[in-house]
Amino acid sequence: MATEVGFVITNAPYGVEPWCLTETSLDLNLIAQSESVFALSNGHIGLRGNLDEGEPHGLPGTYLNSLYEDRPLPYAEAGYGFPATGQTVINVTNGKIIRLLVNDEPFDIRYGTVRSHTRRLDMRAGTLTREVVWTSPAGHTVKVTSVRLVSLTQRAVAAISYSVIPVTLPEEGGAEETADSPGGIPLRLVVLSEIVANEEVPVAAADPRAAAVLAEPLVGEEHNATDGRRPRAILVHGTRSSKLRLAAGMAHEIKGPERMALSVESFTDLGRLTVAAEVPQGDELRIVKYLGYGWSSQRSRPALVDQVAGALAAAELTTWDGLLAEQRAFLDAFWEGADVEVEGDAEIQQAVRFGLFHILQAGARAEQRPVPAKGLTGTGYDGHTFWDTETFVLPVLTYTHPSAAADALRWRHMTLDVARSHAAELGLAGAAFAWRTIHGEECSGYWPAATAAFHINADIAAAVVNYLDATEDEEFTREVGLPLLVETARLWRSLGQHDAQGKFRIEGVTGPDEYSAVKDNNLYTNLMAQHNLAAAAELAAKREGEARDLGVTTDEMASWRDAAEDMYLPYDERLKVHQQHDGFTSYARWDFKNTPEDHYPLLLHYPYFQLYRKQVVKQADVVLAMQLRPDAFTPEQKRRNFDYYEALTVRDSSLSPCTQAVMAAEVGHLDLAYDYLAEAAFMDLQDREHNTKDGLHIASLAGAWTALVGGFGGMRVVDGGLCFAPKIPQGIVGLSFRMRFRGRVVRVSVRGQAATYSLLAGDPLEIKHHGRPVTISGEELTLDIPARVPPPPPGQPAGRAPQPRRARVD
Amino acid sequence: MATEVGFVITNAPYGVEPWCLTETSLDLNLIAQSESVFALSNGHIGLRGNLDEGEPHGLPGTYLNSLYEDRPLPYAEAGYGFPATGQTVINVTNGKIIRLLVNDEPFDIRYGTVRSHTRRLDMRAGTLTREVVWTSPAGHTVKVTSVRLVSLTQRAVAAISYSVIPVTLPEEGGAEETADSPGGIPLRLVVLSEIVANEEVPVAAADPRAAAVLAEPLVGEEHNATDGRRPRAILVHGTRSSKLRLAAGMAHEIKGPERMALSVESFTDLGRLTVAAEVPQGDELRIVKYLGYGWSSQRSRPALVDQVAGALAAAELTTWDGLLAEQRAFLDAFWEGADVEVEGDAEIQQAVRFGLFHILQAGARAEQRPVPAKGLTGTGYDGHTFWDTETFVLPVLTYTHPSAAADALRWRHMTLDVARSHAAELGLAGAAFAWRTIHGEECSGYWPAATAAFHINADIAAAVVNYLDATEDEEFTREVGLPLLVETARLWRSLGQHDAQGKFRIEGVTGPDEYSAVKDNNLYTNLMAQHNLAAAAELAAKREGEARDLGVTTDEMASWRDAAEDMYLPYDERLKVHQQHDGFTSYARWDFKNTPEDHYPLLLHYPYFQLYRKQVVKQADVVLAMQLRPDAFTPEQKRRNFDYYEALTVRDSSLSPCTQAVMAAEVGHLDLAYDYLAEAAFMDLQDREHNTKDGLHIASLAGAWTALVGGFGGMRVVDGGLCFAPKIPQGIVGLSFRMRFRGRVVRVSVRGQAATYSLLAGDPLEIKHHGRPVTISGEELTLDIPARVPPPPPGQPAGRAPQPRRARVD
Repeated sequence: MATEVGFVITNAPYGVEPWCLTETSLDLNLIAQSESVFALSNGHIGLRGNLDEGEPHGLPGTYLNSLYEDRPLPYAEAGYGFPATGQTVINVTNGKIIRLLVNDEPFDIRYGTVRSHTRRLDMRAGTLTREVVWTSPAGHTVKVTSVRLVSLTQRAVAAISYSVIPVTLPEEGGAEETADSPGGIPLRLVVLSEIVANEEVPVAAADPRAAAVLAEPLVGEEHNATDGRRPRAILVHGTRSSKLRLAAGMAHEIKGPERMALSVESFTDLGRLTVAAEVPQGDELRIVKYLGYGWSSQRSRPALVDQVAGALAAAELTTWDGLLAEQRAFLDAFWEGADVEVEGDAEIQQAVRFGLFHILQAGARAEQRPVPAKGLTGTGYDGHTFWDTETFVLPVLTYTHPSAAADALRWRHMTLDVARSHAAELGLAGAAFAWRTIHGEECSGYWPAATAAFHINADIAAAVVNYLDATEDEEFTREVGLPLLVETARLWRSLGQHDAQGKFRIEGVTGPDEYSAVKDNNLYTNLMAQHNLAAAAELAAKREGEARDLGVTTDEMASWRDAAEDMYLPYDERLKVHQQHDGFTSYARWDFKNTPEDHYPLLLHYPYFQLYRKQVVKQADVVLAMQLRPDAFTPEQKRRNFDYYEALTVRDSSLSPCTQAVMAAEVGHLDLAYDYLAEAAFMDLQDREHNTKDGLHIASLAGAWTALVGGFGGMRVVDGGLCFAPKIPQGIVGLSFRMRFRGRVVRVSVRGQAATYSLLAGDPLEIKHHGRPVTISGEELTLDIPARVPPPPPGQPAGRAPQPRRARVD
Repeated sequence: MATEVGFVITNAPYGVEPWCLTETSLDLNLIAQSESVFALSNGHIGLRGNLDEGEPHGLPGTYLNSLYEDRPLPYAEAGYGFPATGQTVINVTNGKIIRLLVNDEPFDIRYGTVRSHTRRLDMRAGTLTREVVWTSPAGHTVKVTSVRLVSLTQRAVAAISYSVIPVTLPEEGGAEETADSPGGIPLRLVVLSEIVANEEVPVAAADPRAAAVLAEPLVGEEHNATDGRRPRAILVHGTRSSKLRLAAGMAHEIKGPERMALSVESFTDLGRLTVAAEVPQGDELRIVKYLGYGWSSQRSRPALVDQVAGALAAAELTTWDGLLAEQRAFLDAFWEGADVEVEGDAEIQQAVRFGLFHILQAGARAEQRPVPAKGLTGTGYDGHTFWDTETFVLPVLTYTHPSAAADALRWRHMTLDVARSHAAELGLAGAAFAWRTIHGEECSGYWPAATAAFHINADIAAAVVNYLDATEDEEFTREVGLPLLVETARLWRSLGQHDAQGKFRIEGVTGPDEYSAVKDNNLYTNLMAQHNLAAAAELAAKREGEARDLGVTTDEMASWRDAAEDMYLPYDERLKVHQQHDGFTSYARWDFKNTPEDHYPLLLHYPYFQLYRKQVVKQADVVLAMQLRPDAFTPEQKRRNFDYYEALTVRDSSLSPCTQAVMAAEVGHLDLAYDYLAEAAFMDLQDREHNTKDGLHIASLAGAWTALVGGFGGMRVVDGGLCFAPKIPQGIVGLSFRMRFRGRVVRVSVRGQAATYSLLAGDPLEIKHHGRPVTISGEELTLDIPARVPPPPPGQPAGRAPQPRRARVD
């Protein structure tokens, strides 16, 4: 046992390095998980980390943000307004494939001998590198090196550098020399670089959370291949029902022996470059493959083809090295205002950067397209976007890469008309945004956990307010912020009602905890609606003219303020805790003691009927309300509520531990917060929910940042002001994080009982340190952290305590 | 306007006669409705009132009780425990078909000229008679008379007498006489009598309430035809998935000219007798067709064939006239203890007998098979049985034909193992009976309105207690009654819990009102569960040994009594009314004013989400609780509750008006009770819900009886004692009804302000008259009805007042 650092290094498959993930052997049992972990994306194009040669694979995946196909949603017993059509992300034309023949034998790691196999995701370079030394069944050895990137600077472009070198293994005692070939017999190498549409994909699992997979979703419209110095091929396809069109193209630079046989050809579902050469030992055959993608619901076929050809030309002009350099520069700029340093816990250090990197990948260039729950890393949840984007992901982007947060909210704004229709269909005013969607229309087939979860509308409003507070972006306020706040406030006003005592009540809705549904006065919902109504009234009052253009009257504003002020918040006077919803605290407790460990997640082993009527919490609900509405609770209430709900929360959702970490830290359970931080941070790296194969849990990855910054950093924005309340558990030696706020870059470093604030860019800023206002400027400001007696630790449901991450130096 | 009798005679298509329904013209727009209205059944075999020649039709229908096929239940988003397979009643081999050629032209009422067309359902004879005079396009006229019965005495038998007579129309001035044929030219008649499997049936409507229809559900296994004096054919088929086998056979007696060409043949899906004859004007060609049906999940093909051949032989032995006589005798005995006479309202008179007749048809010979919601009159609701059988139909059978009530409960008892498994799957003790089923397994595809409606278990228990009170049937108590009460009590004990204050609460269930779902402490459910628990404890204590054999301990009995005594009943202290469920009275009221008339039923125009969170009631819920638990409310509470819920109840369910009639009568709104009586009574005869085509509303038909006997008769059984509280509205001159109770036949006659009790059979019996105990014996006992000041009339939701049925003689 390493006693210097007390925590246990788990045997993670990706090593523990500060800036990289390195996989040093290829375990076919992990291949699907690694495809998600090693996925590259810029928010527009997403490539799963499939092997260059395409197989073996877990799930081949190439995605374009918002390129989906419709699918019918069936019901055993339909009801009015149940959506008839869903949307499912589809696997588009795969440009990653580069196959290799070594003296006629296909390079396939399932055959021959893999001497070494390393893949490395570099989060500063923005590349995935693979190095393989492989000996064919006939005994010929090659070293294959591929480097893959999805450009963060050129939105339509991805690129792969693929190199093959015939090598002689040292243990074989040097090259086989012959008269003809002094350096050993040259190998006959054939490289086939392809773009492939309608790949076969495995049938999705019966687990309702796994995505439905559509077979052959693409209909060929055009294909062409151009020979020449930089051989190209382009395929154009359309979807049957959603009527979208995409073009995918590849262009190549080839470096190899003087004599090479080249051909390029195209078919409906296939473009193929074939390069054949005899390559001497130690020499290199190298191909740089540029990929261009474009899709549209409106543009013509020629326009799309030109768009892709243009993207390829721009990439070629930039060159491979140029793309690498741009990529690094983009990421350097990102990390400058976003990095989190964790001293004393190398795994968490790696994990929080891994999370930030994937969040950036999911949002960076999405540009008015949604950020799906899985980003563009897999087909989980059908590629849909949920509330977790606004609640978990956008806050991180808001403080690290704000333009991406703005773009995601602009996408919501683009769906406003659909949301207005949806509200009208439900008999409500304003806008009701879809619970799960790609294009804006509601795609949920189970309304109690979807349509009824109206809190998504307040979550969107909260993300708007967050973004406005953090950026003071005037144009966004006018074009997006005000309309979103106004329409969501209208929704709440029509969804709730003043009762005979004047309290404003919201009945029959579902909060974040999916083990309760269709309940009266969900505390989280009511608090978030209150915030939404008040924020809309305040902004409309500030921007009266623009509000008037949206039809807002002073009476309407007053009605929002009244509803907010009169908001009913269920509270149990006997237990002195808030109720998750009316009546919750008088429900029977779930029988945790008699629930076997393998019966989690509960939703796969117990009927909703039972879950909904018991005191059992899937994921933070009241506790999330306390994080997002810190002003609405006294410290004593926070502690009592936290402990009460902690004993009921089973964390069957990846959205829970980060929130529990934040609030555990706030109420003083620092070690518990550390445990939950780890649970959030390792969700995908350790495949805690056994479904990373379907794509990464983007919100949970964001949660690692939130647990560190919001939890141990105590970062909140209250009334527009930036507040910190740092305190770190014994296991962490030092925590330092950077964030962007109103044009500044702020750096907060915590070590022991002191916090140091610095302003890395921008004008001086007033902040709060543990409630005390201070101004930070260019000079470092070190402040003491108030001492605090930790409260007694709370309990969890039997068997559901988090894995302890104790880091005590005894 | 007829002023002598103040009510308006609506233009019903079936005339107004006390014992018959007579349709005097064939309206193709009403054909599907009439097929349901004219359906014949004995509870085992059901024949829709299709025309003999098979077409035109609304829905061809021949059903055997519990002969169903499985069908998959799809879900857009599945959940744990959602049933994967449903059951759908299928249209079995049709033996009704008799086609006719008149000089080579098919007899088809859509061609040629229909001179007259009369159909008459005779509720004393138990027959459907049809008389048609038809002139073919070529000008030849025939009179066709068919009489159809489904035997109430021979369970496997139906029969048709079919007669054709060439006639000369009077206006044609006598017969066409020729030298060869002094009575006019004989007509060449061909009669084709068939049994047909896998008929084409129309595709079901999109309305979720209409049944799914399965195409070609039967797989041929055997067919044979036997020539001879009484030509026969038998077809044997099986179902694909449910693995049931059925045999259908026909035998014939033929009377006609000496020279007839006869042939009989069979194919996989067809048996056919062909009779050709030249029939002189005025002579008759007559065929008696006996039909035999049998089905089984276990018996062999030969055994089934023998069963059907045997049934045919028995019917032939009985003869047509014998079958008619048996039928009438059976019905005479029924009416003797069941008839209801309504003086002064001929339509209600007809309707209540129509209802009783169809209830008898649905249950008489079901014999340990369920009574479906539509009986065997159509495919509505997939042929499923629901709680309405126990709550609405069985009480009527209990007091009019008790053996049928016992049989239906014996069927429930047969599904006890399935119900125990279902309970276990839901994490509950005891038995949880299916919300909708044919064979016992839960077939609902929307759990909030099905699995969550646990009240069905208490409804079954209440039907058991009713039956035991009314019959004191020892064998039934031991074999069926006690096990059902014990297992349902166990369910309730595990479904509810004592809260911190000791109250027994039942959370997250759905009551009768389907515009609320998954609510806490539904008043109806809690009251019925209380009754169930108390009744089980009482019976188990009485029959300790038998209870011990079922594993019941004294501790368990005590826990049932405790739960019953501590039962929590939601009550609004401010409004002084009971709450339908926790929180109901603080919900917003439905916006009735702005709900257009054509937006009813609401469930087809508004999402469940909105319905569930508003004060709007689809069907009597608190009001039904007051009918079934008269002991649990004070008279003042009954009146206040009735008025409160009356203003919220839209009656989008056919199960509502009869209950409203009963309670309106009890609290003194006699005119309103009369309106609701009419609504229940005319549900099918006037097709009030526009879906009589899918089958009759058996429970609503029962409701007409209940409204008269329970409403105006004030009949209740309290603590095992029979109570009456008669009072009739001004519109009804006199009401008289007979009922069976503990071996007696009791007759109650009400006229003006006096009621007369007589005992038509059995020993003297103590009853109550308006709360006052009296003993009735052979002599008539006439008692005054206490005068009462009527309370002010309550209001209904805007636009939902019932059609007034005022019968005032001014």
